[in-house]
Amino acid sequence: MKMRSENRNNDEKRSVSIVKDFMPNSMSSCLISCGNTRVLVTANVSDTIPPFLTGQNRGWLTAEYAMLPGSTVSRKQRERNKYDSRSIEIQRLIGRSLRSVLDFQAFPGILVTIDCDVIQADGGTRTASITAGFVAMALLFKRLLKEGKIKKYPVKHQLAAISCGIVEDEALLDLDYSEDSNAVADMNYVGTDEGTISEIQISGEKRSVTDEEFTKLLALARKGVGELLKIQNEILEGEE
Amino acid sequence: MKMRSENRNNDEKRSVSIVKDFMPNSMSSCLISCGNTRVLVTANVSDTIPPFLTGQNRGWLTAEYAMLPGSTVSRKQRERNKYDSRSIEIQRLIGRSLRSVLDFQAFPGILVTIDCDVIQADGGTRTASITAGFVAMALLFKRLLKEGKIKKYPVKHQLAAISCGIVEDEALLDLDYSEDSNAVADMNYVGTDEGTISEIQISGEKRSVTDEEFTKLLALARKGVGELLKIQNEILEGEE
Amino acid sequence: MKMRSENRNNDEKRSVSIVKDFMPNSMSSCLISCGNTRVLVTANVSDTIPPFLTGQNRGWLTAEYAMLPGSTVSRKQRERNKYDSRSIEIQRLIGRSLRSVLDFQAFPGILVTIDCDVIQADGGTRTASITAGFVAMALLFKRLLKEGKIKKYPVKHQLAAISCGIVEDEALLDLDYSEDSNAVADMNYVGTDEGTISEIQISGEKRSVTDEEFTKLLALARKGVGELLKIQNEILEGEE
Amino acid sequence: MKMRSENRNNDEKRSVSIVKDFMPNSMSSCLISCGNTRVLVTANVSDTIPPFLTGQNRGWLTAEYAMLPGSTVSRKQRERNKYDSRSIEIQRLIGRSLRSVLDFQAFPGILVTIDCDVIQADGGTRTASITAGFVAMALLFKRLLKEGKIKKYPVKHQLAAISCGIVEDEALLDLDYSEDSNAVADMNYVGTDEGTISEIQISGEKRSVTDEEFTKLLALARKGVGELLKIQNEILEGEE
Amino acid sequence: MKMRSENRNNDEKRSVSIVKDFMPNSMSSCLISCGNTRVLVTANVSDTIPPFLTGQNRGWLTAEYAMLPGSTVSRKQRERNKYDSRSIEIQRLIGRSLRSVLDFQAFPGILVTIDCDVIQADGGTRTASITAGFVAMALLFKRLLKEGKIKKYPVKHQLAAISCGIVEDEALLDLDYSEDSNAVADMNYVGTDEGTISEIQISGEKRSVTDEEFTKLLALARKGVGELLKIQNEILEGEE
Amino acid sequence: MKMRSENRNNDEKRSVSIVKDFMPNSMSSCLISCGNTRVLVTANVSDTIPPFLTGQNRGWLTAEYAMLPGSTVSRKQRERNKYDSRSIEIQRLIGRSLRSVLDFQAFPGILVTIDCDVIQADGGTRTASITAGFVAMALLFKRLLKEGKIKKYPVKHQLAAISCGIVEDEALLDLDYSEDSNAVADMNYVGTDEGTISEIQISGEKRSVTDEEFTKLLALARKGVGELLKIQNEILEGEE
Repeated sequence: MKMRSENRNNDEKRSVSIVKDFMPNSMSSCLISCGNTRVLVTANVSDTIPPFLTGQNRGWLTAEYAMLPGSTVSRKQRERNKYDSRSIEIQRLIGRSLRSVLDFQAFPGILVTIDCDVIQADGGTRTASITAGFVAMALLFKRLLKEGKIKKYPVKHQLAAISCGIVEDEALLDLDYSEDSNAVADMNYVGTDEGTISEIQISGEKRSVTDEEFTKLLALARKGVGELLKIQNEILEGEE
Repeated sequence: MKMRSENRNNDEKRSVSIVKDFMPNSMSSCLISCGNTRVLVTANVSDTIPPFLTGQNRGWLTAEYAMLPGSTVSRKQRERNKYDSRSIEIQRLIGRSLRSVLDFQAFPGILVTIDCDVIQADGGTRTASITAGFVAMALLFKRLLKEGKIKKYPVKHQLAAISCGIVEDEALLDLDYSEDSNAVADMNYVGTDEGTISEIQISGEKRSVTDEEFTKLLALARKGVGELLKIQNEILEGEE
Repeated sequence: MKMRSENRNNDEKRSVSIVKDFMPNSMSSCLISCGNTRVLVTANVSDTIPPFLTGQNRGWLTAEYAMLPGSTVSRKQRERNKYDSRSIEIQRLIGRSLRSVLDFQAFPGILVTIDCDVIQADGGTRTASITAGFVAMALLFKRLLKEGKIKKYPVKHQLAAISCGIVEDEALLDLDYSEDSNAVADMNYVGTDEGTISEIQISGEKRSVTDEEFTKLLALARKGVGELLKIQNEILEGEE
Repeated sequence: MKMRSENRNNDEKRSVSIVKDFMPNSMSSCLISCGNTRVLVTANVSDTIPPFLTGQNRGWLTAEYAMLPGSTVSRKQRERNKYDSRSIEIQRLIGRSLRSVLDFQAFPGILVTIDCDVIQADGGTRTASITAGFVAMALLFKRLLKEGKIKKYPVKHQLAAISCGIVEDEALLDLDYSEDSNAVADMNYVGTDEGTISEIQISGEKRSVTDEEFTKLLALARKGVGELLKIQNEILEGEE
Repeated sequence: MKMRSENRNNDEKRSVSIVKDFMPNSMSSCLISCGNTRVLVTANVSDTIPPFLTGQNRGWLTAEYAMLPGSTVSRKQRERNKYDSRSIEIQRLIGRSLRSVLDFQAFPGILVTIDCDVIQADGGTRTASITAGFVAMALLFKRLLKEGKIKKYPVKHQLAAISCGIVEDEALLDLDYSEDSNAVADMNYVGTDEGTISEIQISGEKRSVTDEEFTKLLALARKGVGELLKIQNEILEGEE
Repeated sequence: MKMRSENRNNDEKRSVSIVKDFMPNSMSSCLISCGNTRVLVTANVSDTIPPFLTGQNRGWLTAEYAMLPGSTVSRKQRERNKYDSRSIEIQRLIGRSLRSVLDFQAFPGILVTIDCDVIQADGGTRTASITAGFVAMALLFKRLLKEGKIKKYPVKHQLAAISCGIVEDEALLDLDYSEDSNAVADMNYVGTDEGTISEIQISGEKRSVTDEEFTKLLALARKGVGELLKIQNEILEGEE
């Protein structure tokens, strides 16, 4: 097996950095780098609650995900006048994951939109979006609380996400693009600071996965999420 | 907790029936009923291989999923001139799952399309689509083999899918719509006749899930998939 | 001339059956079979009256028509992100025909939507949709009346539809697909139980039609409609 | 009953004029006026035969119909990024009608497009489009023949169209907008110079139509078509 | 250099005529001919003010531009279900130009739409649209004032537009299509009756433009606009 | 008049920085900051030449422009399944400007796409896109030349762009958003290192502009462009 990027062991994630407020016109934002993968995430609010919540005195959160045309090695066509079905699947995952730790009664009448725009794609863009999306969301709610626009902090648990997969019969944490395209199966894991599961998606496109492999992947993912939660905390602690 | 439909125990799935060749203009088709959920599934072939496979001497399989407007209690708007993002997420899952058991070298230059059209929705439409999609796909390949259009049966393993979830802190197999809308978490499990995992999607929209709960759900799902594999076999054995 | 399907004479229609409430999540529904042509029809209501009727204290009825991808011998592309102009022409015909026998004052503020989804296409799908659409519509209004949601039954006349055409210089009733594709002219006739005309569309794509031929076609169509009205009655009489 | 426009009797059509080559960038064109209704019609050719005719050594004709935003008393929204279903139904009628008198073998590999753009709408725009569309089409084929691009004139019969309808229980020829919006039923009739029928569409939106009424409408329509055929001839005779 | 159309000198514009009320269903309209370029322009009002003006007690004006399919020598595809980006750029220019001379407080709650539909394209369609758009707009406001629907004439200045460009190193006024396609640079100039500039767009697609050339073009354009303003006045003076 | 951002005089532009290769998956890229306005620009090539250039042995360049949803103070709706007409107008300007300095014979069969994605909007995003677009384009062609993919450097002149406008009757260079929204007229100027004009767009939305004002704006713009050309050179000189 060839050497991993950053000369990593199988159970090591790539180096991660999160820059807060990279896009200051948004209420909160961050630029996350996970190895060569980089995603710009912003959080903003509006008072346009979706129709199915009318009269319920609750808030809502929605997410959008896209890749900049220049983010991939072959230029990716811009999503104008068409939908990219992979993007839709990913943004639904991001939204569901972030909603799983929210108390909607705590921000009535507020719609939060998390925008995740990939500027460099090297594997793991959806999990990087969730990890950074949690940071942007937490910053947003801290600021709304400080400004008196909400009365209670609605975030019940901390949340982060990482990928892992089976490559040449080995279980690897945090696949980069070259690993991902050779994987027989990959898993995206979204976990909380309580060790509970927000979302797991395991998919064996090339072959199905045994229980033993699945158990290994779960252990790797949990290790990775634990490390990401600490990195998030460093950013969030800087915010009153 | 209120009584389950069909007076079921927590680990019981709904009654399932599969009617073969319900839509005879298609190369193969079936109508699956899982309790009150009913889906029409057809399989057809064309020789229009997607561009990314040009020159590779392989086949491909794609899936489409939609709900008839009258399939839901409130009429669902027809997907014309718009995409329904839930449908897109589901049809990507169906396609990935069915592809995980295929040998693409065995049907070079052939594109298989599996269409899943829900005529009655009562929970579990995506897993019913996969279970019936496998039947339609297997029938199709048996017929192509018989007609001499392919030389080898490309299906490596048998595959079925079922949902389960946590409702009022209990783990239930095969949620109907009323259970699904009250679930704090739900899981879709796609498994093979070798006991391996093709796809798991677990999602804790209302709260995250503990390891203990996850373990219970896995056990339920495997029980259900095992029973579905037998029902599929009854249909498939009738076909030479 | 080759033998007709079901060994019919020129003035005979195909065997017809109508199954009531095939899709129980809709307020009313039926599955019609006219020979090998089969269409699922549902009727549902909403209180979203179209803008041009605002403030008029009237109801309205609209129809939608589509073919399932697997309903034709060559898979038909799904109407997503595009309109099929043939479908649009057909659904406008269905809507106009059904509206011609309605008293809009009798269901103020109610929008009825008739959905016609073809599951097997063998000629005559639009006329089968109208014949079954009348049944679904009548059932719907009977039920609304029973539930006290309307005060008067708004259906003024009974309505059914059938096709006919000129094939190899002979006038034939109820063309199947192989006849239809060889016809020099075809006609769709929508008639009432009073013998009056709701809609006629005669079209001579390959050559124009003489008066004598037109007269023959009219006679055939009226015979066919008369027989269909009786079949509808058997279903409707079962409903209080 | 109030006086008809141009002080007409019930069986009189409006005054008609046809101006040839109003849009000289097109291969042929005309501006038709039927009373206050005015339509610009152009005919052009390309060598892009539709896919279903590949390898058949035939030509084809297609038609498009639209209304300019300022053509109606209330400005009509422009058909951009959307389809107007009435326009689609109309352009299908125009295309079918004109095709019914063509010999496709006589212009192999040529696609004719007839564009009908309404600049003033006062009833009867679809029949005016067909009447003028025939003129543009005939001029086009005469010119192609002269230029040696085809070897035989492909137009087998002359064709014109007119509307009629039942207004306050009287049968009227050539309805203007105010009559059309009060009609209980209207009919569009497309007839040839041999007295044969190319297309009839009769529609009883407000009530169904008796045989006696239908017979009266047929007689009116044939009278009108006869007069229109003469007016077309005056234009066409000017062209060698 | 070859002779110019209409045998013009470099500083001469083509002959211009403006026919008032060519499309009488609109509140005002005109057909402008600038040489062989001809555009139909209509003006209409509605009370649907765009959202960004809500509560501001102002009016607004918007413009739309399109080419009829038969207006160009090669048939131009109809803008259905797609946008033509050139059309969008042009209609934004038309709208901005006309708005530059309006007092929005003088027609509160009124949305004016100017529709420009090219029926023959031979260069200069956007400037012809502005020149004719001014006429239609002025006629509209005169009529609204007469009918008492507004209290003050909102047009602050008169406005006309013309193109010019550099062809074979010579500066030419009012390019026709053959000149335009050979131009190294072209300019569209929108000027007022006070000699001020509403809009200039100069674009050097093939090479950039020197100051000296730019000065020549400005002088040509101003001469042309001065002549167009007089032609507009002849039309407008006929309206009380 | 209130103080300008960065405490600038009327004829001073904002501080500008250009970071090279910010998005390394693209062939060349830069992040430009003009005060608070920041745009990500990438350049990529493909061999898909647009149809109108088939058989001409030339290259082509096209540009796309969009704003990230979080780039504006009120979140901007993502351009999915719709076109933003302002974006279209801007990207056409960017493409035309960059093409004006290219020799298309020097890169036959190559399509260059320049993508400009605004991550922070504070006025002048289109001119910043052109200035940075030139850098990305020049870097791209230098690299193609070095790799031997082209034989000659196709860039004939250096190019930069800046905005200016009339605010409270004063002519200001390089408007930020607060100035731009109060401007009575604004101008975008694209100029070369030879002092020639590639493109000027001056627009007097609130009132028209006098010659004297226009002359002042031209002088400001040229001063600004001159300074930008020097900043571009610092980046480009670093590249062999």
